[in-house]
Amino acid sequence: LLYDNPNAPNPRRVRMFLVEKGVEIPTRTVDLRSGEHFSDDFRAVNPGCTVPALVLDDGTAIAESVAICQYLEAVYPDPPLMGEGAAGRALVTMWQRRMEHDGFFAVVEAFRNAAPGLRGRALPGGREVEQIPELAERGRRRYGWFLEDLDRRLQETSFVAGEDFSIADITALVTVDFARRAIKVEPPAGLGALDRWYREVSARPSAGA
Amino acid sequence: LLYDNPNAPNPRRVRMFLVEKGVEIPTRTVDLRSGEHFSDDFRAVNPGCTVPALVLDDGTAIAESVAICQYLEAVYPDPPLMGEGAAGRALVTMWQRRMEHDGFFAVVEAFRNAAPGLRGRALPGGREVEQIPELAERGRRRYGWFLEDLDRRLQETSFVAGEDFSIADITALVTVDFARRAIKVEPPAGLGALDRWYREVSARPSAGA
Repeated sequence: LLYDNPNAPNPRRVRMFLVEKGVEIPTRTVDLRSGEHFSDDFRAVNPGCTVPALVLDDGTAIAESVAICQYLEAVYPDPPLMGEGAAGRALVTMWQRRMEHDGFFAVVEAFRNAAPGLRGRALPGGREVEQIPELAERGRRRYGWFLEDLDRRLQETSFVAGEDFSIADITALVTVDFARRAIKVEPPAGLGALDRWYREVSARPSAGA
Repeated sequence: LLYDNPNAPNPRRVRMFLVEKGVEIPTRTVDLRSGEHFSDDFRAVNPGCTVPALVLDDGTAIAESVAICQYLEAVYPDPPLMGEGAAGRALVTMWQRRMEHDGFFAVVEAFRNAAPGLRGRALPGGREVEQIPELAERGRRRYGWFLEDLDRRLQETSFVAGEDFSIADITALVTVDFARRAIKVEPPAGLGALDRWYREVSARPSAGA
């Protein structure tokens, strides 16, 4: 059972991963607006109060998008989305992390530190954390750099981690779409390689997830 | 060849991993004080300008501590430090990420946004990023919460991810030691489970790495 939410960016990473694998699993939507993720019931699943979370038949609960994808990759190895061979898998991990740190986290930072609905909740989890406007601003600046770096990378390779579509592309696509929606930033014109990649990856069926 | 630095916390994660594996590999120290990580030579290895980076015999360069550890785990599987079985491995990844996000990143944030020597370099990489004092303060507060959460976890299990020592313990130990050294925060008295774990893990030969 996958605890899911249709609007949050992290669950979309897992949904895209599942569509790429051609796998369907039962899901349950957690209502983030009413704060269901802070309920005792959901804390029993994931004390970190974040979606997604995957609960296996034996009750094991796996939180963290990347950990869930790693589990799915092991159980449904085809097509590989996390690389092949020791070095190939490490390189996908490296690129995935770069997409997260330089892009995904920057956009989340920009969003959570500015959205009126998230006052006092600038970080995920149940603790009160005030927004830092300077950090929102920094997140937007970082996201701009991320797009430039990604464009440079995509001048050399078809996909983020090389010639095959991978979890690094999923993280990057979710980042760009979340930025468009949540902080209203479009990729700037003139980044041709990024534009080519964005159109290609957005046309995959998984992008609808 | 491992590009290393004796003072930075990320390279220590990889060095500890290697000692736990009983593996020695040649290393080269990158002089972070003189800015060698921003040199053209090092950018050719890792455009992200961070250590550690592992260069394989065929020239493949792997950056990002966790990606390097994943490579080493595949090549030297014993003893396993990243879990066993699909679910076991996913759970180690989940815990490792929690240690990183809630602990390691919080301390790095507290350090980089306050250290006089890092003005204009509040983020890794070659770009100018001003420090945000509020973020340094928030990092310290987050680190306190992290220690409380970790203590609660260690009341239930021997090690962070369960009954076996793993990469999650390495990340957590490097975090606590870096906090002691870089932001001068000691784990508070009264967190008995954390104290028990810290003494045990610090006594392992790998802690000297």
